[in-house]
Amino acid sequence: MSCPLSPFQVEATCGPARAGRFETTRGPVLTPAFMPVGTQGTVKGITPAQLAEIGPQVILGNTYHLGLRPGDELVRDLGGLHAFMAWPGPILTDSGGFQVFSLSSLRKIKEEGVTFQSHIDGSTHFLSPERSMEIQRNLGSDIVMALDECPPGRMERPALETSMARTTRWLQRCRAFPLGERQGLFAINQGGVHMDLRTRHLHEILDLDARTPFQGFAVGGLSVGEPKDEMNALLSEFTPTLPADRPRYLMGVGTPEDLLFGIAHGVDLFDCVLPTREARHGTLLTSRGRVKIKNARHRTSSLPLDPDCNCYACRTFTRAYLHHLFRAGEMLASTLNSIHNLSYTVGLTRAARRALLENRFPDFARRTIDQWNTEEP
Amino acid sequence: MSCPLSPFQVEATCGPARAGRFETTRGPVLTPAFMPVGTQGTVKGITPAQLAEIGPQVILGNTYHLGLRPGDELVRDLGGLHAFMAWPGPILTDSGGFQVFSLSSLRKIKEEGVTFQSHIDGSTHFLSPERSMEIQRNLGSDIVMALDECPPGRMERPALETSMARTTRWLQRCRAFPLGERQGLFAINQGGVHMDLRTRHLHEILDLDARTPFQGFAVGGLSVGEPKDEMNALLSEFTPTLPADRPRYLMGVGTPEDLLFGIAHGVDLFDCVLPTREARHGTLLTSRGRVKIKNARHRTSSLPLDPDCNCYACRTFTRAYLHHLFRAGEMLASTLNSIHNLSYTVGLTRAARRALLENRFPDFARRTIDQWNTEEP
Repeated sequence: MSCPLSPFQVEATCGPARAGRFETTRGPVLTPAFMPVGTQGTVKGITPAQLAEIGPQVILGNTYHLGLRPGDELVRDLGGLHAFMAWPGPILTDSGGFQVFSLSSLRKIKEEGVTFQSHIDGSTHFLSPERSMEIQRNLGSDIVMALDECPPGRMERPALETSMARTTRWLQRCRAFPLGERQGLFAINQGGVHMDLRTRHLHEILDLDARTPFQGFAVGGLSVGEPKDEMNALLSEFTPTLPADRPRYLMGVGTPEDLLFGIAHGVDLFDCVLPTREARHGTLLTSRGRVKIKNARHRTSSLPLDPDCNCYACRTFTRAYLHHLFRAGEMLASTLNSIHNLSYTVGLTRAARRALLENRFPDFARRTIDQWNTEEP
Repeated sequence: MSCPLSPFQVEATCGPARAGRFETTRGPVLTPAFMPVGTQGTVKGITPAQLAEIGPQVILGNTYHLGLRPGDELVRDLGGLHAFMAWPGPILTDSGGFQVFSLSSLRKIKEEGVTFQSHIDGSTHFLSPERSMEIQRNLGSDIVMALDECPPGRMERPALETSMARTTRWLQRCRAFPLGERQGLFAINQGGVHMDLRTRHLHEILDLDARTPFQGFAVGGLSVGEPKDEMNALLSEFTPTLPADRPRYLMGVGTPEDLLFGIAHGVDLFDCVLPTREARHGTLLTSRGRVKIKNARHRTSSLPLDPDCNCYACRTFTRAYLHHLFRAGEMLASTLNSIHNLSYTVGLTRAARRALLENRFPDFARRTIDQWNTEEP
């Protein structure tokens, strides 16, 4: 396998926390970084021009969705996902596994792969490690995720161990698949909230890694229903044991609190639909904490949503206007709220990076949390 | 009443068709011009930055909607509609009459005004000439429309004559109301598709105009259910009889065919929700005619939507991508389709203006219509 991504360079640390960078053929990725999710070939409600102003380092595409519609071969024929959605920067595609296990119905898991029914039209499909790699190769993403089995948050240990073993065998098959020259493969670690299982699985992954190195490592299967304190305990203990010379990606995690916690414990990459989903529901993430824009207190407010934010929504409109758009059910509410929430979240990881580079991360983290606890403005 | 709008300067003519301009305190208005509709303080799905790139001369705001929500006094307190929605260019507000007659329920028309129930929450409101002027003064629009009674397209002559007489009396009351210094008042002509009634009503308007001139004249009550050929026959005969030294506004008309017809017969201003509504339903207006983007023929097309269009959607994406977004129900479909349809419609009036200035309007009109009749590409 080729190594299209440069080695991960650690530029600064603070305990387990680190600022780093790696190169893709489509530009550098500066970490810590939050990756907005573009499920169906679009970050919902946002044009690529608006997204470029928000400035994410990487964005996500969904293998499950794009494989079903419009189909990965069509995307390939149209020049790949970057050309299709007009996003020139780095793209990470997930494996499709999580969606098969959460969105589709009547799935049947065998060693060979998973048979499932499309959530769109009920048609039957098959996802195997090879098929996941094939879809991602056709999409032409820069970072490819290995197909893992995604166990629910509270699976019993014996079942979890069986699932982990399969994930390791699937990882071998993913690695054997010929990806594109510009693509790098990340391995996904499982093991629930059990440190011993996480460590055992990591050893299996590192055995494979010793022969041909993976481009990065992901922590999967968290934030899927387990208690938050168990997730955090696992993360704080486990993350620092991941190889330091590769990027670490905590999958599906994205509240501001979780980002800060993850960064503090050595995570480099995050993704989550939360900022855009909450935006559409009128919950806005700000430097002073969460703002529910539909609340009556904002009806007449001439203040910007977040005085510390320089996004298009904050520098152009009042809270009263955003309140009005949301109450009136206008599409533009979702767009402006999404622009803000993504700007806030991407900006939070960017600010954390700067604090790490300037050797003031603990102070930054403390002040950020303190600000969140001021009353809703 | 002050005269904030400069006199209408006719820059070129071709038979009854004309290119012209007038000044508002927020910039010049070059005609013919199509005005996008921003019903609730937003052109649906479009940011002001995107709208600025589309480049309309004037946009529309709705007195009925904004008076009910968020309320005209709140908009005034927040600096007026321009500041509220962050649109620095000229804004025309309608009188609210059309919506009271089409959207609200249980209305009661008296000489004093109309009592109606809000389509939002059923609450009871009252719209009179004075209240319409007050709302529009609070919104701070550049062009204010007089309140008229909006008869349905097929009203019998006696009822229509009663309605017209009331519209004239309401116009007197509108003109007596003190508008803002930057605001100019347009009178609205009624009379259905009857040339004699239109002419009689125009004489009543011109009697008032002789004392204090109106800023412009609108043709109301068309495109409301009457046969298209009757509307066109009336327009071609009546429009040229309107004073040549003031802008002429054909209300609620906006198919490409209707725009060309109106321009050819001397109309200067148009507005319609059609381009944005059709956009949301996937019908795209192009130089080759209408494109239904959901059709299977576009699924794999690497062509731009309209090769003759330079809008953001056409210069950035393929038909295949627009087809995918629409099929997937993505919000971005509505945004991109609206950007295109407004660009097309505003561009059509801009091209007609250029053709008039360059003394080649008949050729332009013929070639435009011929192109529409080429098969859907």
